[in-house]
Amino acid sequence: MGLHPVVMAGGSGTRFWPLSRRRRPKQLLPLASEQPLIADTIARLPPLAQASSAYVVCGKLHAPIIRRMVPELARQRVLVEPVARNTAPCIGLAAVHVRREDPEGVLLVLPSDHHVRDPAGLRAALGAAAEVAADGSLVTIGIQPSRPETGYGYVHIGSALGERAGREVYKVQRFVEKPDATTARAYVECGEYLWNAGIFVFRADAILAEIARHLPALHAALEGIAPTVGTARYARTLAKAFPTAESISVDYGVMEKASRIACVPGNFGWSDVGSFAALPEVRGADPEGNVVRGRALLPGCSGCIVMGDGRRLVAGVGLRDLVIVDAGDALLVVPRERAQEVRRVVDALTQTGDAKLL
Amino acid sequence: MGLHPVVMAGGSGTRFWPLSRRRRPKQLLPLASEQPLIADTIARLPPLAQASSAYVVCGKLHAPIIRRMVPELARQRVLVEPVARNTAPCIGLAAVHVRREDPEGVLLVLPSDHHVRDPAGLRAALGAAAEVAADGSLVTIGIQPSRPETGYGYVHIGSALGERAGREVYKVQRFVEKPDATTARAYVECGEYLWNAGIFVFRADAILAEIARHLPALHAALEGIAPTVGTARYARTLAKAFPTAESISVDYGVMEKASRIACVPGNFGWSDVGSFAALPEVRGADPEGNVVRGRALLPGCSGCIVMGDGRRLVAGVGLRDLVIVDAGDALLVVPRERAQEVRRVVDALTQTGDAKLL
Repeated sequence: MGLHPVVMAGGSGTRFWPLSRRRRPKQLLPLASEQPLIADTIARLPPLAQASSAYVVCGKLHAPIIRRMVPELARQRVLVEPVARNTAPCIGLAAVHVRREDPEGVLLVLPSDHHVRDPAGLRAALGAAAEVAADGSLVTIGIQPSRPETGYGYVHIGSALGERAGREVYKVQRFVEKPDATTARAYVECGEYLWNAGIFVFRADAILAEIARHLPALHAALEGIAPTVGTARYARTLAKAFPTAESISVDYGVMEKASRIACVPGNFGWSDVGSFAALPEVRGADPEGNVVRGRALLPGCSGCIVMGDGRRLVAGVGLRDLVIVDAGDALLVVPRERAQEVRRVVDALTQTGDAKLL
Repeated sequence: MGLHPVVMAGGSGTRFWPLSRRRRPKQLLPLASEQPLIADTIARLPPLAQASSAYVVCGKLHAPIIRRMVPELARQRVLVEPVARNTAPCIGLAAVHVRREDPEGVLLVLPSDHHVRDPAGLRAALGAAAEVAADGSLVTIGIQPSRPETGYGYVHIGSALGERAGREVYKVQRFVEKPDATTARAYVECGEYLWNAGIFVFRADAILAEIARHLPALHAALEGIAPTVGTARYARTLAKAFPTAESISVDYGVMEKASRIACVPGNFGWSDVGSFAALPEVRGADPEGNVVRGRALLPGCSGCIVMGDGRRLVAGVGLRDLVIVDAGDALLVVPRERAQEVRRVVDALTQTGDAKLL
């Protein structure tokens, strides 16, 4: 039973503009450390799994950059989606590749753009989840919530299934969508709700069987692609079959409907790095609560997040809770609590057709 | 009685950092229009006086730049101070030059870094002041205050002296320093206090006579320089004599002590452009109260001042009353009401010896 990391890198967000662009989405940015989030993601796998054993699933535009950023990956382990089709088709495609390489192989499905403060804790949870998955269960890692967050989905856990690798494993009652503030508070107080971090562990054959049951069109596409893997016909078949799959998340398309879903709770300093406002929890702040990348002078400033490009000095005076981002050709200033509204600028640039800055 | 504009350009402030630098102080920046403040100052003189008839007094570092910026000026009309010695020596030096050119000449002394919304109003006030100055009076233009400003000195006017060129002229009781807020409110209510804008009108011989009376060391230096003007000995004599003069303002050193001081009130949209916070009154603001130079996108922003460098896009989201300045190699963000505190950054740069940014 080999472990096969599958790093999902198909995302294209706007919440890190002007650092993120179409050609350089969030997962390719050095937000948490000096290397891109995707490189951080792969670097925290060993010794549980080797970096070279990972698959990365991404779009055409980003495959060449990812190959340069993660040189340990053999060329054929970067799986290029002809079109973006959300996580169910992405994982299905990876499962087809893993099954061919290792018929009893287990996928460790990981988003490429999250941060983990305690990588050993993540690996321990993944290891336990892999043991649970050996019997064909679909396993999700549920994150112990530290606040009533309304920006995440939750996993409602049920009865305990016993211990694996020293930790309690639970049945999953259901997956729930992002709650409102009152519901989120109730979730955290009740103790039966964990954050859904999009981290999944299952055997390739198990997830493909569930896809066959719940997403038959996707399954048909995948079984059309499967025999061509490693042949000259692969690219053409993929280009034809993959776009026929429905665009749907694995959570909604499979996990919510499948039986034998288990949850391994984890508590390893996870963050989805949802916007610039998340950077203090990811990068750490100085005693005034400021987070600085690049060169900055900040007399009288507190709670500020400055992402410089290293060339220009960023000077702030008497600022509170402000985000300042210098991306060389564009500059962003936004209050920390409104960091999500960056998309208003991206929308405006889209309308004016200013493609160079998108 | 010729009119001789004397533009004082020796200032070196820090309140417009990072736009202003040692080599490019405020008066050399295009803050109010697309040309530098000093060019605006000279451009608003005609038809009262020709630009080519002006003298500019400045420091060594800035003379070559000023000659390029104001090409109408003959080379010998840029008077270079060997060292900065405040306004009394600056004006004394100009008076020596004017007296030689025109023994009955009248100086129109103007700061180089202020803004005037109504240049015709300024010229009318200067013309009236020149008539008053014909009898040897020292005349100051007092600005009708529009708010209880604590950042300016005031002129306390006394009895009326009669009309000149259709406007009332007053005796000056005294010059007062920058008041506290309560005092400033009382000044504005009482109606006898006008802003001291640093604009003075007097005959060259009259100001030199008052300098002889109240600043004898300066007068001695000036009379040592006077015979050498236009000769090969001028530069050397100036370099030797000028630094012996006391560093003192004309307000404090002469105007406050002289007799026969008159004030011509003016109301021509004057601003000393004291900091970035003054730019809305100088440049005008859009309906949201934002002032923008360069390229900016400001969804949900109001009361913001954005000075871009024209190359980079400045994007702000949901900001209120913030100053954002992009000077190419340095970036400044500061709340509008704290714009004066920019000097904290300059102080920090001075301490770290970062001369390139000063």
